[in-house]
Amino acid sequence: MAERRFTLAARTGAAFALRKGERLRVINSHGTQVVDTWAFASPGAFASPGAFASPGAFASSGEYLSLEHCREVLQKLFFETGDLLLTNLYRPILTVTQDTSPGRHDTLIAACSRLMYERAGRGPDHANCADNLAGALAAHGLRPAVTPSPWNLFMQAPVEPGGHIDFVRPLAKPGDYVELRAEMDCLLAFSACPDDVYPTNGGDGTPRDVEIHLI
Amino acid sequence: MAERRFTLAARTGAAFALRKGERLRVINSHGTQVVDTWAFASPGAFASPGAFASPGAFASSGEYLSLEHCREVLQKLFFETGDLLLTNLYRPILTVTQDTSPGRHDTLIAACSRLMYERAGRGPDHANCADNLAGALAAHGLRPAVTPSPWNLFMQAPVEPGGHIDFVRPLAKPGDYVELRAEMDCLLAFSACPDDVYPTNGGDGTPRDVEIHLI
Repeated sequence: MAERRFTLAARTGAAFALRKGERLRVINSHGTQVVDTWAFASPGAFASPGAFASPGAFASSGEYLSLEHCREVLQKLFFETGDLLLTNLYRPILTVTQDTSPGRHDTLIAACSRLMYERAGRGPDHANCADNLAGALAAHGLRPAVTPSPWNLFMQAPVEPGGHIDFVRPLAKPGDYVELRAEMDCLLAFSACPDDVYPTNGGDGTPRDVEIHLI
Repeated sequence: MAERRFTLAARTGAAFALRKGERLRVINSHGTQVVDTWAFASPGAFASPGAFASPGAFASSGEYLSLEHCREVLQKLFFETGDLLLTNLYRPILTVTQDTSPGRHDTLIAACSRLMYERAGRGPDHANCADNLAGALAAHGLRPAVTPSPWNLFMQAPVEPGGHIDFVRPLAKPGDYVELRAEMDCLLAFSACPDDVYPTNGGDGTPRDVEIHLI
């Protein structure tokens, strides 16, 4: 990663290649912003460039941060400082090395998508996390066949005892951050969630920029 | 589906093509068995047969039952009678028309896989739900690039208030069943979970057969 500090503009996505052992902070500059997060093993996660001649082609060895594998092994809904996060092949890909934010980080809810905003009556051109991921990966010449379930940093979707899921505003303060260490060479992708339908993004619900720092 | 009653042997998988409006029951003959369940839109979910010349190729329009989309729209962890289940494109694919079993059906935990059993020291040849899915789909000439997160019928993975996930034995009685109605032409895939590591399968933990009936 040539640049060590990067402003991820509101409603946009970006991906960063990390070597094993490198750390990165996702800084919630305004304290109100949800950041959808994905991690892909590198380089084995993707088919060779030639394979992309067939649209949607994807290496059958596709390996990425898998929330359902993390929930199984960690036996928890919400990941926190010290947790080792795993791929769908049970290999460590990230460690949560610091988390200064209060609250939880959702693992349950799909990335927002063009279709979600269409269902909500917002028209077909609404920025969305699924397209942001696709664009961020395309910038690295990559294309996943599916949108893996995102780890929604700062997103508060508390689960009530009966299993009801609520959506509430983030609890972070301006400057709160989550620090992640790569446990393998990987590509970390982020989307500053463009959601203005659910009460996902805090304050007045306006999507805002966040900072990504390699440290 | 030529046969209307099918015994799914312990530790095995099978897939059934349903037309919109058809219903199917998953019957827990012994009351102790977890059944990993997937649904794929048909026929658009898969690349044309020719595409499979490239191993792992998968139509980018791949559409399947998506637990994270269901959790978002239903705002619940556990799906129950009357719930309309959605694909990753927010299209209805199944309705839960009946459920005679007590307890919940897990939506949080990954399908067991060869790697899971290797991690648990059970060797590389342990039957597993991920391979059962692949085999069941292969019998229909299909191959998914990834194993979607399974809907784990009868599996009890209760979530404590702090977010801790427990694994306990199924609560079903012999003969309890879940009935599903196809809301689009689809392929329903099941695996009688071979797990004998976690306390997933009830009684003495021995995987057992279940019945699949088209009604």
